[in-house]
Parts: sequence; structure tokens; C-alpha cells
Amino acid sequence: MAPKATLETGRAVRLACRNQTWTEQTSGLAYGFAQANLVILPKEHAFDFLMFCRNNPKPCPLLDVTEPGDPVPRNVAPDGDLRTDLPRYRVWRQGELVDEPADVTSLWRPDFVSFVIGCSFTFEAALLRAGVPVRHVELGRNVPMFRTNIPCRPAGVFHGPLVVSMRPMTPSDAIRAVQITSRYPGVHGAPVHLGLPERIGIADLQRPDFGEPVPVADGELPVFWACGVTPQAALMQARLPLAITHSPGCMFVTDVPDDTLAAG
Amino acid sequence: MAPKATLETGRAVRLACRNQTWTEQTSGLAYGFAQANLVILPKEHAFDFLMFCRNNPKPCPLLDVTEPGDPVPRNVAPDGDLRTDLPRYRVWRQGELVDEPADVTSLWRPDFVSFVIGCSFTFEAALLRAGVPVRHVELGRNVPMFRTNIPCRPAGVFHGPLVVSMRPMTPSDAIRAVQITSRYPGVHGAPVHLGLPERIGIADLQRPDFGEPVPVADGELPVFWACGVTPQAALMQARLPLAITHSPGCMFVTDVPDDTLAAG
Repeated sequence: MAPKATLETGRAVRLACRNQTWTEQTSGLAYGFAQANLVILPKEHAFDFLMFCRNNPKPCPLLDVTEPGDPVPRNVAPDGDLRTDLPRYRVWRQGELVDEPADVTSLWRPDFVSFVIGCSFTFEAALLRAGVPVRHVELGRNVPMFRTNIPCRPAGVFHGPLVVSMRPMTPSDAIRAVQITSRYPGVHGAPVHLGLPERIGIADLQRPDFGEPVPVADGELPVFWACGVTPQAALMQARLPLAITHSPGCMFVTDVPDDTLAAG
Repeated sequence: MAPKATLETGRAVRLACRNQTWTEQTSGLAYGFAQANLVILPKEHAFDFLMFCRNNPKPCPLLDVTEPGDPVPRNVAPDGDLRTDLPRYRVWRQGELVDEPADVTSLWRPDFVSFVIGCSFTFEAALLRAGVPVRHVELGRNVPMFRTNIPCRPAGVFHGPLVVSMRPMTPSDAIRAVQITSRYPGVHGAPVHLGLPERIGIADLQRPDFGEPVPVADGELPVFWACGVTPQAALMQARLPLAITHSPGCMFVTDVPDDTLAAG
């Protein structure tokens, strides 16, 4: 395994993934470079998926979309290769997980279109820099995520509920967090809800649908952001014959400095 | 009484107050021009009061401070006269309300310093323009205000609790309201708290310390902003021999377009 300390840039992480000296989660690597969710699917469904992202920009902030067959995300990593540069992938057939390889070159097709979607790591780094604690980071856990009763605006075969991630905060930190994350529309932006989980169909904060639970203390409010699992959930529900995504936590690390995603 | 429709600028309102053809509240007049709280006190206490404002910028956003004896707020209304241009004043002796005149020229002294302090009308107009409903405006009531358990940072004889105004909102409107009011640091800026009133010492939202109660519906959160009553409360507690303020709702209307107070 490549020593973590050597993986200080997007390019270094991508190369370590490409030669499989790094096959683990990317959280904490290449500090300051934006990481991204990945969805790969045949061109036949690419228009519908692009429209789904366009219809639901908060959960699906697109950082890049490739030309059919092109494995290079030219806007965010011009020397990257989406077939090899992630630590681990998930392969889906008819909506079922069938494999979790470290390389998808053998599956590649000339009609594959790749969607590179912003990830909350970028705004979490901004929160931490501003002195706003992020509970699941402190606890070394995956963020808790919940299906809501808010439907996404559908597009073709893609539909499903908005999935949100939850971070507990004091009210004053929640206000700061709205200010800070509003500056990052390319990585989910401002929260979509806070304070009243039952209003968005969340019955029990200790039973997330994805990720791991974290405690919500007295004097804290749950704050909810649109989550990149939303497009993946819509993708699974669509039961395409073949689709590929990143494996949870094993993101594509771009060349894009987090700071360039800040508006204003 | 001057017809309301003729009072479309700060200057028109000031002249109508000066000749006493307008002696009522200024809410809804001169749309688009910033209105302001007023505190007038002897120079002897002006340094302490200025430091109090500086120490507590969210409740005391200073739009203008005059030279001793000068009744003209040269930054915000160069042809204004703070002795005559408000519909009604309050005169305080030893912290007690002793008179509520429409003109304070007869009380004027060469050592009087005036503090013109931003008012929430500016950000409420921005909220309404953005489609965020403001309950007390809809109901035609004064905003409910509460003393909190958050102490202001004292300065000389001036001290006391932070006073907040409360507007109930749905969580998504509350998030929008944080974004919108963050742009207006000159008129109290972002909320100071939301969702957990007991945490800031507010036991009963239906029993405000100032203003009028408004209902908080199911599915709404109370959102709290620092309030311009804070410096007035500190002023009363200081029990100065003489001080003058605006009468509630009878603000000083400036020449400053609300939009010029927006950051970014």
C-alpha cells in the first residue's frame, strides 16, 4: 500500500489507484483537492440521467460529463482515467450489485458516458477550517444518510426520493454552516432542511438508511444536506442492464482545488 | 396627515415629520430606503456607547454617528435633522420615560451625540422580495422581541442582555433567510439562533418582552435575530440623566437605498 503521506495531490492518488498501490477509501487523501462521486452508464440512458441531474442539482451537482467512450474527465482531471483511477468500483446489473473490482477496463464500452458528481468532502473541509465541528469526522464514521419523503423531479427511467446526509450542530454552528456551505453550490450547497426530521419523513435519527448513526446531543439540531447517494439510489431503482459507480468512500480525486468551487 | 403615497423617499418622510404632517409609525413608507433606530446622548457617555456598539455589532450595527452638537447625520441623510425628522421621540431621564414629543429641538444641547443604528425593516424587505413570508408583517403586528440569557459585551456604564426578534419559518425558509440576511451585516445580518429557544433563555414564545406575540405553526422553527432594542435596553439600564431615542416604530428614514447595505 502506498504511504498515505505521499498521496498529497489528485494526480498522486489517481496514479496509486491505477497501479493498485492504493485500494482503500479516499477520505483524508490529497487535502484541498475536490473528490467526486462517479456514475458510468451506456449512452442510451445518458440523456435521461443528465436530465435527472439537471432536474435535481442539489443532490446531483455535476463537475464533469464525458463524451461517449472517453474515459478522461477533461474538465476536472485531464490526465485521469475513470476506468482505473478509483480505488474500488461497484458494478450493477439490473440494479443488483454483482462485483466490486479495482479496475473496470475489461468492462469498458465505446458507448459509456461518465458523470462526475460533487461530494460533501469539499464543504466538510470548509466547515472544519471555519471551526464548525463535524460529528462523524470526529468519530471516524461514515456520515448517516436518510431517504426522505421529498421526491426528486424524475427524468425518463430515473426517479426516487431525495437522500440526505445529516450532521448534528448547535443552532449557532448550524447558522454558520448554512453560510459556509452556501458558497459551495458545486458540492451540494446549503442544507435542504434542519431541525424537524419528521417533516421530511425521517422517523429515527439513530437508524440511517445508509452510513452509520451518530449521536445528536441536547442543544443540537440535525442539519440535512442533499446527498450524492440520491443519484445512485435512482440509478439502482432504474435497473439498467449495466451501470458502474464508485464504491462507497472510494471517490475519484480530481485536480480541482476545493477553493475554486467556492462561489463569491 | 400627509397622504402615505406621497412619502416615497427618505427626504419626503423627513420633511413630513419636520412639518408634523406625519406623526405615525414609518413602517411601509419610502419603500427601498433604509430606516434606522436612533439614540441621542451627551458626549460624556458617547465613548462608552460607541464602544458598546463596537463590542456588540450584531444588535448595534452603526449606520452613522454624528459630531457633538451636530444634528445632521451626514453619511446617511446630509440634509436631514435628527431633532425634527422623526415622527415621534422618547425622552428618558434617569432611565425613566418622561415624554414622547414630535420634536426635540427645545431639548437640544451642544454636547449631544447621535447614533443611527440599522433596523430590521431592510432585511425584511429582502426576505419578502425573495418570497420568504414574514409572519408579523402578514398579521400587521409589531415583531415579538425577547430578552435572552446571552450577555452583551459591556462597555463602561452600558451592559445588559442581547435582545432578539423572532420570526417563525419553515426549515427551508429559515435556511433561505440565513442566506438572505447574511448579506445585510449593516442591519443585524444573519440570525443568532434558531430552533431551540429554551437554550437562549426564552421560556414562552407567546410571551414576548417587547412587541406582540405571533403564532408558530406546526412544522415551523422560531428564528432569532439580534435586535435594535438591545442598545435601548442597555441605555435604560444605564439610567443616564438624559437620553433621547426614537419612539417604537417611528424610525429615522435615511437616503440610503436598502440595496447598498447588501454585501456581495
